[in-house]
Amino acid sequence: MRHDQRQPDDLRPITVERGFTRQSPGSVLIRAGRTTILCTASVDEDVPPWKKYEDPPTGWVTAEYNMLPGSTSPRKRRDRNKVDGRTTEIQRLIGRSLRAVVDFEALGARTITVDCDVLEADGGTRTLSITGGFIALVDAVTSIEDPGFDSRRVFTDSVAAISVGIVDSQILLDLDYSEDSIAQVDANIVMTGSGQFVELQGTAERGTFSDAELAAQLKMARAGIHQLTLLQQETLGDKWPLDTIREI
Amino acid sequence: MRHDQRQPDDLRPITVERGFTRQSPGSVLIRAGRTTILCTASVDEDVPPWKKYEDPPTGWVTAEYNMLPGSTSPRKRRDRNKVDGRTTEIQRLIGRSLRAVVDFEALGARTITVDCDVLEADGGTRTLSITGGFIALVDAVTSIEDPGFDSRRVFTDSVAAISVGIVDSQILLDLDYSEDSIAQVDANIVMTGSGQFVELQGTAERGTFSDAELAAQLKMARAGIHQLTLLQQETLGDKWPLDTIREI
Amino acid sequence: MRHDQRQPDDLRPITVERGFTRQSPGSVLIRAGRTTILCTASVDEDVPPWKKYEDPPTGWVTAEYNMLPGSTSPRKRRDRNKVDGRTTEIQRLIGRSLRAVVDFEALGARTITVDCDVLEADGGTRTLSITGGFIALVDAVTSIEDPGFDSRRVFTDSVAAISVGIVDSQILLDLDYSEDSIAQVDANIVMTGSGQFVELQGTAERGTFSDAELAAQLKMARAGIHQLTLLQQETLGDKWPLDTIREI
Amino acid sequence: MRHDQRQPDDLRPITVERGFTRQSPGSVLIRAGRTTILCTASVDEDVPPWKKYEDPPTGWVTAEYNMLPGSTSPRKRRDRNKVDGRTTEIQRLIGRSLRAVVDFEALGARTITVDCDVLEADGGTRTLSITGGFIALVDAVTSIEDPGFDSRRVFTDSVAAISVGIVDSQILLDLDYSEDSIAQVDANIVMTGSGQFVELQGTAERGTFSDAELAAQLKMARAGIHQLTLLQQETLGDKWPLDTIREI
Amino acid sequence: MRHDQRQPDDLRPITVERGFTRQSPGSVLIRAGRTTILCTASVDEDVPPWKKYEDPPTGWVTAEYNMLPGSTSPRKRRDRNKVDGRTTEIQRLIGRSLRAVVDFEALGARTITVDCDVLEADGGTRTLSITGGFIALVDAVTSIEDPGFDSRRVFTDSVAAISVGIVDSQILLDLDYSEDSIAQVDANIVMTGSGQFVELQGTAERGTFSDAELAAQLKMARAGIHQLTLLQQETLGDKWPLDTIREI
Amino acid sequence: MRHDQRQPDDLRPITVERGFTRQSPGSVLIRAGRTTILCTASVDEDVPPWKKYEDPPTGWVTAEYNMLPGSTSPRKRRDRNKVDGRTTEIQRLIGRSLRAVVDFEALGARTITVDCDVLEADGGTRTLSITGGFIALVDAVTSIEDPGFDSRRVFTDSVAAISVGIVDSQILLDLDYSEDSIAQVDANIVMTGSGQFVELQGTAERGTFSDAELAAQLKMARAGIHQLTLLQQETLGDKWPLDTIREI
Repeated sequence: MRHDQRQPDDLRPITVERGFTRQSPGSVLIRAGRTTILCTASVDEDVPPWKKYEDPPTGWVTAEYNMLPGSTSPRKRRDRNKVDGRTTEIQRLIGRSLRAVVDFEALGARTITVDCDVLEADGGTRTLSITGGFIALVDAVTSIEDPGFDSRRVFTDSVAAISVGIVDSQILLDLDYSEDSIAQVDANIVMTGSGQFVELQGTAERGTFSDAELAAQLKMARAGIHQLTLLQQETLGDKWPLDTIREI
Repeated sequence: MRHDQRQPDDLRPITVERGFTRQSPGSVLIRAGRTTILCTASVDEDVPPWKKYEDPPTGWVTAEYNMLPGSTSPRKRRDRNKVDGRTTEIQRLIGRSLRAVVDFEALGARTITVDCDVLEADGGTRTLSITGGFIALVDAVTSIEDPGFDSRRVFTDSVAAISVGIVDSQILLDLDYSEDSIAQVDANIVMTGSGQFVELQGTAERGTFSDAELAAQLKMARAGIHQLTLLQQETLGDKWPLDTIREI
Repeated sequence: MRHDQRQPDDLRPITVERGFTRQSPGSVLIRAGRTTILCTASVDEDVPPWKKYEDPPTGWVTAEYNMLPGSTSPRKRRDRNKVDGRTTEIQRLIGRSLRAVVDFEALGARTITVDCDVLEADGGTRTLSITGGFIALVDAVTSIEDPGFDSRRVFTDSVAAISVGIVDSQILLDLDYSEDSIAQVDANIVMTGSGQFVELQGTAERGTFSDAELAAQLKMARAGIHQLTLLQQETLGDKWPLDTIREI
Repeated sequence: MRHDQRQPDDLRPITVERGFTRQSPGSVLIRAGRTTILCTASVDEDVPPWKKYEDPPTGWVTAEYNMLPGSTSPRKRRDRNKVDGRTTEIQRLIGRSLRAVVDFEALGARTITVDCDVLEADGGTRTLSITGGFIALVDAVTSIEDPGFDSRRVFTDSVAAISVGIVDSQILLDLDYSEDSIAQVDANIVMTGSGQFVELQGTAERGTFSDAELAAQLKMARAGIHQLTLLQQETLGDKWPLDTIREI
Repeated sequence: MRHDQRQPDDLRPITVERGFTRQSPGSVLIRAGRTTILCTASVDEDVPPWKKYEDPPTGWVTAEYNMLPGSTSPRKRRDRNKVDGRTTEIQRLIGRSLRAVVDFEALGARTITVDCDVLEADGGTRTLSITGGFIALVDAVTSIEDPGFDSRRVFTDSVAAISVGIVDSQILLDLDYSEDSIAQVDANIVMTGSGQFVELQGTAERGTFSDAELAAQLKMARAGIHQLTLLQQETLGDKWPLDTIREI
Repeated sequence: MRHDQRQPDDLRPITVERGFTRQSPGSVLIRAGRTTILCTASVDEDVPPWKKYEDPPTGWVTAEYNMLPGSTSPRKRRDRNKVDGRTTEIQRLIGRSLRAVVDFEALGARTITVDCDVLEADGGTRTLSITGGFIALVDAVTSIEDPGFDSRRVFTDSVAAISVGIVDSQILLDLDYSEDSIAQVDANIVMTGSGQFVELQGTAERGTFSDAELAAQLKMARAGIHQLTLLQQETLGDKWPLDTIREI
């Protein structure tokens, strides 16, 4: 039993509120335990310079990640003069993960920026950003009003992410901060709703890990991602952009 | 009648949620119309270098202000390499305003940082930051557990702020963005609960203004601040740090 | 009697030297007591990007403010990696104040930059920058040689500024540094030659202030600004761009 | 057959020159095909601030990565005002990988910095930095002259790294730039000489990948790392800090 | 005859005003033709970190150089985010030149910073900064009130500087901007009052130069520096820190 | 006899390896004693903005200089947030020196960037960068394939550089770090193969120097540069872009 009464393969309680703010077409407040993230998605009818002259024109999806100062205790100093390495790494991961399920030609010559601002941090912020960011992205894409634009053609799959780790030789799903800080191995798995890997990052924070330990972690993550995909589908309701969700 | 059915001297509908996040001892989500701000207050048991050797030791209150990228449409670019002039000006105003009602000797040798992160911007973000920031500050101060520390001695008064402006020759309270962007005069008034000025900034954005116009604006602002003070008192309940609230 | 033998409503002795340097069309060395500022105004036959496509084309006036390292004792460290908040605030104020009396359509598609470099600082640098900057601006505008350009149509009014404060419960005009550093209230007033407010910033540095105290400060500032306007008119002689100066 | 006549599971020809420069105790020029990296390791008899008060005192290993402008065609602009995200990500990976095989208590209160400067880039720079950086690290550690310091106790294992990817549905080892730029999946595997994972990063650059594809990549990488470990052992000769090398 | 009626070996008319501002103990406004520089020298009773533990304690002299925006036409953009290469080069030269004539042990554990702010630039700003900076430095040193400090022991010599160049195959002294911009060779010579070289920088801006051309330039510079030394001596009057001035 | 058995006018043993890396058309590893520099030269078929509209179109040559962290002991911190003054000064010198022998019209509208990365520093890095940079520049220019481009017309002369200094009253050629750090005078001389000065920088690091001392240094430097020119000619073989080399 874990310190918060979860079983090893339990996700934390998770809630999603769409339309939390109204200036961005996608605005999702997602909470998992004591981790809270505001994911907003904005549409810009322009593309980066290196996409300007593509034929046919294609779009782009990018992400930014930031922790608010009050999201941690003690307070986190604001990144005002530079972006630290961890932040850069995370926002690149979020961007790559979201792009993996988008058809840029169907999106057309526009850029969607998904901002993941962590209001409260208790572990798992990068994976929750991907899971919530996908919902904000769908809301932003379906808000596009353009004759001839078909938002359902934009998504080739859904995407979600979860962490898994080894703590005291036991494999645990969805680590919170207190677990993460003592984990021997910490892995972040990004998968599509259809069960394919998008990204896989496993790090031995202390010592190393074996083939067998890797396999066990991947299996537990796969089950967690399936639950998250169901949650995304339920939350989005008729905005869900895919026909089916694969059974695992 | 204004575009949103308000009378000239009406505030926008305002809601406050205390304890919105849990990592910071003060965490207030304050919404006025479509302006939404998360004010968190953190306590650091240390003081700035220039306060280190004071006898008796005294504390400090400082503020930071930031607009999230998704708070505006089109998306606001993140300030990652520098802080723009407007941001600096606003966070200095918030800090000065909160410090005006704090007794630093009673606070003791600790620093409280009030972070005002704008989740949604529709005008009046700096004044709403002060009004909400005061509530977060009170929550942070009353969270301090230290024998011999008396949180009720820290506050000499309460503080709140409101904007007032001249639009089409008419004086209006609590301008939203659409009103602010066409105002001839824009003033921000910071007052204590007991009706004294803390700060007064009036700017003729187009043309100039007379003595009489100034007087009329100040009168309307004073009434608005009284309503905000009552709201602060009601929200804080038995955490309200002052004995009485003066009638105007 | 004040420490330098002034009455409460006395300005400091003030001198102005036009044409102090010769590379800029406007170059004014203005001294008030031991505060010395070099205001230069340069004309650029171009406009900011957001003005490029205006029809009819209109111009722009902007200001920069800087304190030289030797202007204070101890020496002020040079701002080489960033601009501090106070500097930003001041140069934004100077720019807004000068723009309040300029007709941008009459100016035409050009930008005038007014640089206020403080050579010696003893209080009141921001207000003296506005008073001197207006003179440099007039010199720069009248230097423009362009058939069809009428420099007299550019100015709708003149502008000057002064500080006023409360020290030991007494209201004082034009505070020097030693007075400013112990003032309970410090206000900067920017007015036109015709007696209208352009900007009004009052801050309670210690405690707060009442309606009556505000009124008394404004009255004293108004008289000071009238004297400064007369000085500007006398200094500029036949370059004075306005027909009359209003009695107060 | 690959464009450079390699079989899918062939490494590129690899050479190592120890002592390439003489100011750093570890200085290794490592070349794999047309990728050339200078790895230097410096010893500082000090530790980062957060290690100052540890008891018993322990050391630290950190890494920096940089591409020289002439390492690519067209020339790569020098990172002089900021470090780009990719650079940060890579140098964090190198540092974590080297630390995984070091016993910080045996190292004692000193910091070793491994600098990986890419002189010529043709793919695989991050993995070659780890493989070469380990050799430089060993040279630096064995150069420490301190009675009571036993360099053989510092290393718990060796570490090396290799890339593996899927190009045209075929799994390939040690991708060069031309292969990497068209890969569907790109994975970087860091393993110890004894065959344990240290880090595993798999990214679907285009599309996604399955469990089976992951397994095949890991198997090929494992064999490549074994070859690299043998090379490290042969290069270091009697400086090799471990007793045995495990058969796979 | 030159465009301003000078002979080839004529200096421009030069004036010096000591005590131009009053916050710094040394404050010199020096004008040569249309080049105007404010040199202020400040005393800090502290030394740089690398001098803290010297025994006997010794002092330091450093310099900063800056061009004001209004010093050139068109206006020079302010260096606010970085210092450009030319500025760095010049301020390092000024610092080295002044240090060449200072006895740091006699100065004692204090730092003097000489700020050279160019108010008006018409060529020769770096050499005029050295010539004027020496005067400000002497004023700052003689202002030090410390029993046991003997300001006359601080200076081992005086220092001044001048430019010399080749324009249209003719050697010219003290080039103004219009001459400098077409010079084939541009040299800056820093010498002591006793006729020794401190620094010598000759650059062929177009083509190259011979031994004979170098010798002719040095001879003309030497005569110019002698005149500048006499001017420094006359300006400083009884503050002149040296016993004699050598005839050349 | 010097500490490394050289005579006062001996150069250090020097070796040059062309084509050290293969991504840049010019790539030269040059070693003099324990100073090692990688000079790469890259061709960009574009010109800086201020050259865009020249008629006839002309090219540009620029240089960058950088010391790798492992080039010194103790390790040199990487310049990642700013370029220090010394670096800027050196790379400007290298650029000016190389440009002195290039005919920009013959080069045509292209930019060549010469990067000098110091792998190992033991004094004389700036002069060795010029000597080696010239070889890399020739290799880059002769690599240009463009009908109508004649690489032999690009060079008007060759260029090389050497340091000379006064140590213990003795004039020494090609100072290493141990000599440079105690030199009274340190001069860097840049000359063409035909014996003309390009640049001359002499600095009295301690005290000053006389006319006679200057003359003796220049004579010794001239002989050293002649040897370096012969080495450049031999190294480049039939790529040597000039017809003859002048006897001294």
